Amino acid sequence: MTTAETAKAETATAETTNWGRWGADDERGALNLLTPEMLKAAAASIRTGRVYPLGIPIQANGVPLMDYRGKPMRLTLQDSTDEGIYDVYGCKPGTGAHEDVLVFASHTTSHMDALIHVYEDGHHYNGVPAGAMRALSGATKLGIEKVGGFAARAVLLDLPRYFGDPKWVEPGRNITGEDLAGASAAQGVDVRAGDVVLVRTGYLQMWFEQQGDSGFAQAGIGLDAAEWLAARDVVAVGSDNAAIEVIPFENNDFLAVHKVLLVRRGIYMIEFLDLSAPAADEAWEGLLTVAPLKVTGATGSPVNPIFVS
Amino acid sequence: MTTAETAKAETATAETTNWGRWGADDERGALNLLTPEMLKAAAASIRTGRVYPLGIPIQANGVPLMDYRGKPMRLTLQDSTDEGIYDVYGCKPGTGAHEDVLVFASHTTSHMDALIHVYEDGHHYNGVPAGAMRALSGATKLGIEKVGGFAARAVLLDLPRYFGDPKWVEPGRNITGEDLAGASAAQGVDVRAGDVVLVRTGYLQMWFEQQGDSGFAQAGIGLDAAEWLAARDVVAVGSDNAAIEVIPFENNDFLAVHKVLLVRRGIYMIEFLDLSAPAADEAWEGLLTVAPLKVTGATGSPVNPIFVS
Amino acid sequence: MTTAETAKAETATAETTNWGRWGADDERGALNLLTPEMLKAAAASIRTGRVYPLGIPIQANGVPLMDYRGKPMRLTLQDSTDEGIYDVYGCKPGTGAHEDVLVFASHTTSHMDALIHVYEDGHHYNGVPAGAMRALSGATKLGIEKVGGFAARAVLLDLPRYFGDPKWVEPGRNITGEDLAGASAAQGVDVRAGDVVLVRTGYLQMWFEQQGDSGFAQAGIGLDAAEWLAARDVVAVGSDNAAIEVIPFENNDFLAVHKVLLVRRGIYMIEFLDLSAPAADEAWEGLLTVAPLKVTGATGSPVNPIFVS
Amino acid sequence: MTTAETAKAETATAETTNWGRWGADDERGALNLLTPEMLKAAAASIRTGRVYPLGIPIQANGVPLMDYRGKPMRLTLQDSTDEGIYDVYGCKPGTGAHEDVLVFASHTTSHMDALIHVYEDGHHYNGVPAGAMRALSGATKLGIEKVGGFAARAVLLDLPRYFGDPKWVEPGRNITGEDLAGASAAQGVDVRAGDVVLVRTGYLQMWFEQQGDSGFAQAGIGLDAAEWLAARDVVAVGSDNAAIEVIPFENNDFLAVHKVLLVRRGIYMIEFLDLSAPAADEAWEGLLTVAPLKVTGATGSPVNPIFVS
Repeated sequence: MTTAETAKAETATAETTNWGRWGADDERGALNLLTPEMLKAAAASIRTGRVYPLGIPIQANGVPLMDYRGKPMRLTLQDSTDEGIYDVYGCKPGTGAHEDVLVFASHTTSHMDALIHVYEDGHHYNGVPAGAMRALSGATKLGIEKVGGFAARAVLLDLPRYFGDPKWVEPGRNITGEDLAGASAAQGVDVRAGDVVLVRTGYLQMWFEQQGDSGFAQAGIGLDAAEWLAARDVVAVGSDNAAIEVIPFENNDFLAVHKVLLVRRGIYMIEFLDLSAPAADEAWEGLLTVAPLKVTGATGSPVNPIFVS
Repeated sequence: MTTAETAKAETATAETTNWGRWGADDERGALNLLTPEMLKAAAASIRTGRVYPLGIPIQANGVPLMDYRGKPMRLTLQDSTDEGIYDVYGCKPGTGAHEDVLVFASHTTSHMDALIHVYEDGHHYNGVPAGAMRALSGATKLGIEKVGGFAARAVLLDLPRYFGDPKWVEPGRNITGEDLAGASAAQGVDVRAGDVVLVRTGYLQMWFEQQGDSGFAQAGIGLDAAEWLAARDVVAVGSDNAAIEVIPFENNDFLAVHKVLLVRRGIYMIEFLDLSAPAADEAWEGLLTVAPLKVTGATGSPVNPIFVS
Repeated sequence: MTTAETAKAETATAETTNWGRWGADDERGALNLLTPEMLKAAAASIRTGRVYPLGIPIQANGVPLMDYRGKPMRLTLQDSTDEGIYDVYGCKPGTGAHEDVLVFASHTTSHMDALIHVYEDGHHYNGVPAGAMRALSGATKLGIEKVGGFAARAVLLDLPRYFGDPKWVEPGRNITGEDLAGASAAQGVDVRAGDVVLVRTGYLQMWFEQQGDSGFAQAGIGLDAAEWLAARDVVAVGSDNAAIEVIPFENNDFLAVHKVLLVRRGIYMIEFLDLSAPAADEAWEGLLTVAPLKVTGATGSPVNPIFVS
Repeated sequence: MTTAETAKAETATAETTNWGRWGADDERGALNLLTPEMLKAAAASIRTGRVYPLGIPIQANGVPLMDYRGKPMRLTLQDSTDEGIYDVYGCKPGTGAHEDVLVFASHTTSHMDALIHVYEDGHHYNGVPAGAMRALSGATKLGIEKVGGFAARAVLLDLPRYFGDPKWVEPGRNITGEDLAGASAAQGVDVRAGDVVLVRTGYLQMWFEQQGDSGFAQAGIGLDAAEWLAARDVVAVGSDNAAIEVIPFENNDFLAVHKVLLVRRGIYMIEFLDLSAPAADEAWEGLLTVAPLKVTGATGSPVNPIFVS
């Protein structure tokens, strides 16, 4: 960091951020909170042995996509029309292989944001300047490959159940810290340091039922809940909506919650997770693994987190 | 299935295959073996709480790539030159987001094969004809989305250690069932039904040290080891090489081991996993999660399996 | 060709096809008709010196796209965030370059079909079997690179004008040989061997005005006009609609006109050309250049033909 | 333009640039020079009726590619495995269509630079700031779609012939204005306002013979020749090398000639044209059409210019 950046970082780290908390050069943020002991505790919390893959499909239609991100493409690289090309390797007649090429946005359907994803006042987490992201090389710092992949205890909070909503929380509702505390109390599960908190709003069920005719508004957490989560030192927050946070944005401030969690605290955000199956099973606690693809320099990755309860 | 296909399936299922074992319409193969009890046992096997993401980077250079699959591309979708586009959503000056588009083969670097990947005598696992893969729509059966994602007990067998090789098993060596049995006995770990067996050959360490100048040959399991694994009802086999199996192919039969495991038994194969870190820690047993992207109709997916020991 | 294919080709070439006309191995079809003398005549037909690029934009919205072909993507490869990467080559501060990566279907918006595009009874032009197209390598014969690029005399026939339609020919109308003869007579321009005939239906103007809300039907030539054109030994037919031919297809026979022109005669087809500007200028005759990208093995290419009248 | 930009533009336009020459908002540069009379003269210069497509293949191997631009991909979108999908449209058995998806850099193999391609002192042609190129939307000004496509008289200057080099001009040789004047005099062809000048260095023949083992250096025009061409008001300069200009760059100034031609004058540059066929035929003069794909916002386009002599 330049002197100016260091000065900026020092200001920002006063209480409201995690900048500098794990060193001036840290690129992993809240993942530093995780300890082997937490993992063992998470493993010990597995009771039913049920496994929930939380990702939704990646396809061109029938799933929520942002127009500017383009439509995912699966293209055939090799199929049965290629018979004979492996004869030199001893390929018998009738034997062959099918392969594809995939084209999609790093933030398509279920995905995890890298710390390079969002910046505020020209800076990312830990004072990394916005210019650390470059068009040709991608992220020179804070790229998704720095995450590597992680496992943690996860807690699922089911807000439609807590609010008594029939199917989903009404679009635009700002979920508060008190709401999260209330839901965790009602479900009998506590939020601890090092946890991933999965906040179910029912948005995906609304989207699938209405096939996208639901407009831009979504229920999600607001600034109060973001601070509540940050104060508890969670590692990541996942949700079933497009941006974790309530839309329209709180205070009409674009990505307000991303700035609190991702930029200031280095707390990861995982969007578009289908949380309906574990919610139906009342699987409130378990071990979660999140395995972004290690695409060097990328700003995020599609993921399919595995929740074992 | 047509009558002819049914007849074929009946022939093939005699002892040497799992066709029909989980129903004529089954598309998940050996994943049917997994039970909640196995998961609980896997969770109970977690001792140190260490977490190992096994995927290697996805990038255009410095990793093993097959020329015909093309080079992975990470392209910038949105960067700091786009300032102002979110003003309508209340975006403050200095705030912004970085995003990418990714282009790569489904079988690039660390990846998992779907059951639609390989066929023999014109048929895939469970008698599904090769024509179930179509260029435009992709896999109409046995696509990677049928996997969903899974967790299982995993056992790591370190063959260079067992053979006393200094760094890696010599290229072209055929690893047998006796070798696997010997390694598991030497390491004091048993292979059970429902396991994922991770076979370390050291190939990746050789590749990284030689930067691909090592030619086409690779150490890997042969037909004997494949039958040994199939007899134990494992769910999947992972390795650190390009194809799990020894190359040149045993009997000069292209994809001989793929045919035994993937086609005949529905046992999954996960290639190019970096197993060096858990091997160095002697982490022989633990919980593994494998989370392919749910790309509808795809023949495989890059993965970054998480091994918790 | 195998004996069977040769036999088939001999049958097919009886009168109704050009198979074998330019040799058993010919891959260029009607382009063989072009002579330097025709080119000189075409050059001599240039009167006003006006230049009309006939291609329409390639972009994700606002142009007619087929859903299955995906949306064209222009992605930034390099921009001003990359400052400094060329310092080693003497790049001065403030100097830089912008570049993109393009992703689109070969048949996106204005495009030319290669002879490998369509097959009938399992065979392409000149008896080339459908299997000459392979997923991995692409066209092993008749690919777009065999075209190279060409120039020819072109004649523009304006059907809305001829029919007295206010803006466009009504969707679904089958344009006949008599219609083409009538339009050419009314416009005082003749169709000769070696010509490209540009048939304006007004479809694009309808699409732009209605922004795609016009359904699937389109005016276009039918079988009678196709035979009329083939009998005159034209080199290519261009139009402003999606498939040159009337939709619903004549006799409810999918790609009926493609089979007559492209498959049986090797006459090229160029779709989605905006012919409104030369039509407004009554530029009925001139020199046309068509320059498909020489993508090895491709089934077609976007084009932007240049018409000089 | 802001006031500052206007001031800058005024300074820059003093003699050495074309900024402002065609209006403060002009985005087409030297294309403004073209008149219908020039086109008619170009048509009149056609003598032999020979047609030369000047583009080289777009493929992953065997052609000069810059590593950072990635390898071109042609991927199969639809092939004979898709039989049956068009039955609803009356598709007969045995009939089908082949299609692809293309992925490549806008500046891959034979290509044309848009005026947004290069900037100097933070500005493009006509004072357009570098920030007019944005990652998400692409070029907001000076994009390749502003070219549309054009035709012009073209003059081919064959430098190996002029220098008496056996096959190609030696790598690194700086071709001067005097060289261009000498070659045109020796060939008996003059360079006029509105021309495209095609400068053959033999680079492609060297590359094909040596398959890229020729290093980075290339013969090309230097600043003197650039000024010579600019003084003659040419519309575009094409060459058979990677950047038109000599490499190492003159004065070790990155893209020195691009700055003179593209940035200051709005004169277009077209790279990697295979000029060997017309040179062998001594086709020194003719009509050239250049038809970039109208990709909205792109910084350039692959092209396959058609030269008719």
